[in-house]
Amino acid sequence: MAVKYTLLKQCPDTGARAGILHTPHGDIETPIFMPVGTLATVKTMEPKDLKEIGAQIILSNTYHLYLRPGHQLVEKAGGLHKFMNWDRPILTDSGGFQVFSLGDLRKISEEGVEFRSHLDGSKHFFTPEKVMEIQNALGSDIIMAFDECIPYPATYEYAKNSLERTTRWLKRCIAAHKNPHSQALFGIIQGGMYLDLRTQSAEEILALDLPGYAVGGLSVGEPKEEMYKVLEHTVPMMPKDKPRYLMGVGSDDALLEGVYRGIDMFDCVLPTRIARNGTAMTSHGRVVVRNAAYSEDFTPLDHNCDCYVCQNFTRAYIRHLVKCNEILGLKLISYHNLYYLLDFMRKIRQSILDGTFPQYYKEKIKLINEGREKQCKDY
Amino acid sequence: MAVKYTLLKQCPDTGARAGILHTPHGDIETPIFMPVGTLATVKTMEPKDLKEIGAQIILSNTYHLYLRPGHQLVEKAGGLHKFMNWDRPILTDSGGFQVFSLGDLRKISEEGVEFRSHLDGSKHFFTPEKVMEIQNALGSDIIMAFDECIPYPATYEYAKNSLERTTRWLKRCIAAHKNPHSQALFGIIQGGMYLDLRTQSAEEILALDLPGYAVGGLSVGEPKEEMYKVLEHTVPMMPKDKPRYLMGVGSDDALLEGVYRGIDMFDCVLPTRIARNGTAMTSHGRVVVRNAAYSEDFTPLDHNCDCYVCQNFTRAYIRHLVKCNEILGLKLISYHNLYYLLDFMRKIRQSILDGTFPQYYKEKIKLINEGREKQCKDY
Ligand SMILES: [Zn+2]
Ligand SMILES: [Zn+2]
Repeated sequence: MAVKYTLLKQCPDTGARAGILHTPHGDIETPIFMPVGTLATVKTMEPKDLKEIGAQIILSNTYHLYLRPGHQLVEKAGGLHKFMNWDRPILTDSGGFQVFSLGDLRKISEEGVEFRSHLDGSKHFFTPEKVMEIQNALGSDIIMAFDECIPYPATYEYAKNSLERTTRWLKRCIAAHKNPHSQALFGIIQGGMYLDLRTQSAEEILALDLPGYAVGGLSVGEPKEEMYKVLEHTVPMMPKDKPRYLMGVGSDDALLEGVYRGIDMFDCVLPTRIARNGTAMTSHGRVVVRNAAYSEDFTPLDHNCDCYVCQNFTRAYIRHLVKCNEILGLKLISYHNLYYLLDFMRKIRQSILDGTFPQYYKEKIKLINEGREKQCKDY
Repeated sequence: MAVKYTLLKQCPDTGARAGILHTPHGDIETPIFMPVGTLATVKTMEPKDLKEIGAQIILSNTYHLYLRPGHQLVEKAGGLHKFMNWDRPILTDSGGFQVFSLGDLRKISEEGVEFRSHLDGSKHFFTPEKVMEIQNALGSDIIMAFDECIPYPATYEYAKNSLERTTRWLKRCIAAHKNPHSQALFGIIQGGMYLDLRTQSAEEILALDLPGYAVGGLSVGEPKEEMYKVLEHTVPMMPKDKPRYLMGVGSDDALLEGVYRGIDMFDCVLPTRIARNGTAMTSHGRVVVRNAAYSEDFTPLDHNCDCYVCQNFTRAYIRHLVKCNEILGLKLISYHNLYYLLDFMRKIRQSILDGTFPQYYKEKIKLINEGREKQCKDY
């Protein structure tokens, strides 16, 4: 198998666990947050920046790379790692989420999904086989099965039919996957917010003995409590010797709650997306550095952060850059935000290894909630 | 005096010379190209990137910093060096060029220039005293006198009246300058394309015994031959023990021709501006990497370049980034272009020190002209 998970420590009081995920491009210390590099670049960040902040794996998007520059071009370049000059692990998603959220005029059939490009309206057809072909060409270490990420809310019947098709599509993915020894195919458990459908999906998908599993269809607009309920129901069904990936989650509290419930891997565009709006994630809540309140604030984005940006630049300077639409402003906030989440995950992991996770969790959730209330008004 | 120039070697056959300019923030090896950091940032580049490519001094713009974030804010931050986290020398221009080229509805009087902001139309008044106040607040190592950069072409009478006012303004700058021991005020020789007016301006301005002098009013649309003629006429009048600065020049051939005629310092937005259009400066001419011709070109921007970008990224990847409006694309080309010019200046300087400048000049000009003809079509 292309990847292998080693469990190092299981928290006795919560679902939290620390481990190592071995991949063809190196080991990943889990739990881990994966920065998103949609178009073969984590927006504003160079590969060396990503290494500097300790990124161990990044995620890239099949849908976007298929449209630009095209997976054949990436294959000609020697694969995605070489194309973007990133020699650590890469996970690519299946394009399912984008086809359903970005693609226009999509038509779903048993065969696959017909959609129009969000760029130029051109017509395309994704099938499980096509999605495997693309991801095989990209050469990512972990590839995701083609699934339907259903909207929230969805009817029981829709959710059930969809998850059953997702299982059938998964079987076609497994059959079409050309590089099982160098690329690990993860299955995705669906079922919406219906716990019995989650059970059905988990049973169907776990039976296929894949190297890893994701919980999909969450963080799609539902209340966080509902997401946690689905996790509490689903994760205990997942095998202990395989990595567990919660897709599309990247706020600090949700990462903590996910780890608490046994998740090993997360990804989200949040840290880079809010950076582009001039917003920093900090240990005391979000700082909208674009705001006038920070125009003469000569302190760092986050007073508790030891990242390169916080050691070298002030809120006043970064605000000036953001206000002037200077690229460096977006870069500096993106850098800090990603560092903040990666550093947070490292601390979570350390507390699991130290056996202090329940206490760390309690303190951290309290701080995050306080920060949210204060909105950093007192800085 | 705030700066001091040491002449190390004078080419016996041309005007080229190598020296060291000592400043309050360290020594600069001349001849030198100064990257432009308009709004307290060299677009896309971090200070550490600038150090990596060997930038010894950068230029920033008084007009732009006055409007955003305001010189008082920069002063509160502890000066421009501290504000932008750049501990090497900085030169600020006088704002004259921007007031005349960007400011709307400008009214020139003996007192100064009234103009409207290009951002919001607000009314402002620049006088020599005001421009000194701003640059004193910024704390740059080298500050430029407030001058009028006249348009091309201009009548003899206009050029003469203008240069005489520039001299009178310079005297007011000298009187208003508060930090002559920590900030070196450079005078600017004007006179348009009229050689006798260049003589008049040089005589008036050199008589004031400033720590350095610039040749202004060139690279404003005139044929390059005309610029070289003015340089050949003007530079020999300038003192050997003071630095000589040619403003607004940044193409490789013009740098070489400028050094040939005795210039020590250059600045230009060209390398970062064309980067944003997807164009790389290379030893074989410009490469418009945005072009389809490079879509499957897995070679570096410049085959002869040993910069970080050329060692790590391909034209195909950079083209992909540029086509997708990914910030990293602009960053990588900006980085390479600046490296290219800085490295070029280092080689020019070394050839002067080695006594081989005339030969280096001949070979390089030939290569540049060939590159221009081929437009890199054969790559
Ligand atoms: Zn930070
Ligand atoms: Zn290069």
